[in-house]
Amino acid sequence: MSEKNKKLVTAALVIIGNEVLSGRTQDLNLNFLGKELNKIGIRMTEARTVPDIETDIVDTINALRSKYDYVFSTGGIGPTHDDITSACVAKAFGLGHGRHPEAEAMLLAHYKPEDVTPARMKMSETPNGAELLLNPISKAPGFRVENVYVLPGVPHIMQEIFSGFKHQLSGGDPMQSKSISAYIPEGRTGGPLSELQDHFPDVEIGSYPFTRDGKFGAAIVMRHTDFTKIEIVAEEVRQLVRRLGGEPIDD
Amino acid sequence: MSEKNKKLVTAALVIIGNEVLSGRTQDLNLNFLGKELNKIGIRMTEARTVPDIETDIVDTINALRSKYDYVFSTGGIGPTHDDITSACVAKAFGLGHGRHPEAEAMLLAHYKPEDVTPARMKMSETPNGAELLLNPISKAPGFRVENVYVLPGVPHIMQEIFSGFKHQLSGGDPMQSKSISAYIPEGRTGGPLSELQDHFPDVEIGSYPFTRDGKFGAAIVMRHTDFTKIEIVAEEVRQLVRRLGGEPIDD
Repeated sequence: MSEKNKKLVTAALVIIGNEVLSGRTQDLNLNFLGKELNKIGIRMTEARTVPDIETDIVDTINALRSKYDYVFSTGGIGPTHDDITSACVAKAFGLGHGRHPEAEAMLLAHYKPEDVTPARMKMSETPNGAELLLNPISKAPGFRVENVYVLPGVPHIMQEIFSGFKHQLSGGDPMQSKSISAYIPEGRTGGPLSELQDHFPDVEIGSYPFTRDGKFGAAIVMRHTDFTKIEIVAEEVRQLVRRLGGEPIDD
Repeated sequence: MSEKNKKLVTAALVIIGNEVLSGRTQDLNLNFLGKELNKIGIRMTEARTVPDIETDIVDTINALRSKYDYVFSTGGIGPTHDDITSACVAKAFGLGHGRHPEAEAMLLAHYKPEDVTPARMKMSETPNGAELLLNPISKAPGFRVENVYVLPGVPHIMQEIFSGFKHQLSGGDPMQSKSISAYIPEGRTGGPLSELQDHFPDVEIGSYPFTRDGKFGAAIVMRHTDFTKIEIVAEEVRQLVRRLGGEPIDD
C-alpha cells in the first residue's frame, strides 16, 4: 500500500466489552465509523476489541493515542459496575477522575429527583478537564481528552453523539473509491490485477470475491484521494475484464 | 473481572483487511469464533483489525501469539495481490515460504488444467512446515503454524474450515452463562448489581441495556464455568429485580 496522499489523517478504534468478544453482541460501530470518518478524510487504520479489564483498556488507549491522529472508543460508559472506560481513560492520561460539573447538571436536569441514583450519576464522571460530547438522546455524554474520543457502545446513541462533534475533526483529503464487478473468479483476475497494482502503486486496488446466483465473481475496488487517478485505473480494469472474456459492471 | 476458573484457555483474533476498516465489509467472524470457541472452553480475549500492510500484520501476529494460547486470523489468503497473510505469517515465525506440496496437489486436482493460474496456485503457498486446515468448499486451505490458525475471511468458508479442525483445540472448562432480563433501567439496577458483583467476585456479571416497545430495560448476564455458582447469583438477581418493583424474566 502506498500513501502518496497530500495528507493522511489516521484513526484507531477501541471496542470495549466482554459481550463483543463472547459473541453476545455484534459490533457495528467499526463499520459506521470507518465509513463516516472516511467521508471527512480520516482513515480508520486499526481497531482493537478488548475486555472490561482495566489494564487492557489503559494499555490499549496508550498504545494507540500516540500512534494515530485520532482514537475513538465505544462501550463501557454506562451506569453499571462493568462500565469502567472513563476511569481507565483518566488513568491512561494520568488525570484525576470525578464528576464533570456540566455533565452532573445535565443529568440532574434530565432525571426526576426520585430517579437520581448513584449509578446514574456515575455517568457524569470524566477524567478531569475532559470536554463533553453531547448526547441528545439519553443525555449521559461522551467526552474527549486530547485526541481520544470516548463514546457509548449502543450504535444509535453513538451515532447521534458522533454527528454532533464530527465537524470538529480535521481530516485530510477524503479517500475516493470506485468499484467494478465482474463475473470472473479471482483466480483469473488475480495475476493481471497484481501487474496493474505494480503499474499504479499509489492507487490502492482491492479484490473482493462474491458468489451471486451460483456464479463466482469479484468486486475490484480502487481507492485514492484523487478521482482522476482512480478513473485511469478503472479504465484499465474494464479492459482487463473484457480481455478475460467478462463484462465489467460499474457498481 | 476475576478468573478463578480451574483452567483458563485464551484466544485472540486478527482480522485482516482494508475492507473491514473502511466499512466496506462488516466483520462477522469475531462474533462466530467468540461463540464457538466459548463452547469448547476457549475464551476470546482480544481482537485486532489491521490493514493489508506487512509490518502491521507481522507485528500483530507476533504480539498476540506469545500472549494467548491460540491466535486465529481471518482474511488475506485469497489469490490476489492484496492477499499477503501467508507470507506475513512466515515472516512472523522467521520461516521460509513456498508452495505446500499437499495444497498444490489439492488445487491441481480441483481446477481444470486451463483454469490453473499463478494467482490460484498462490493459494497453495504456506510458511514452510505449516499444517493444512482443509477447505471442503473451495479447496484452497487454511493452515496452522504452532498456535496460529490462518483462515479465510469469507464467513461460510471460514466456518466450514473451523468445523473441520475445532476438535483438535484444547479448551478449559467452557464458560456457562445465564441471562435475566427486566424492564428496569440500568440507572436503577446499577448500584445493587455493583454490590452483588462485590459479593460474588468470581461470577462475572454484565448488564446490557435494551429498549423494547419504548420501555427501557437491561439483560443481566452471569458467566462462570460452574453453573451452580451462576444459579446462586441468578436467584439474587431475581430478588433484586423484584425489590426494585420489576419482574425478572429468565431469557
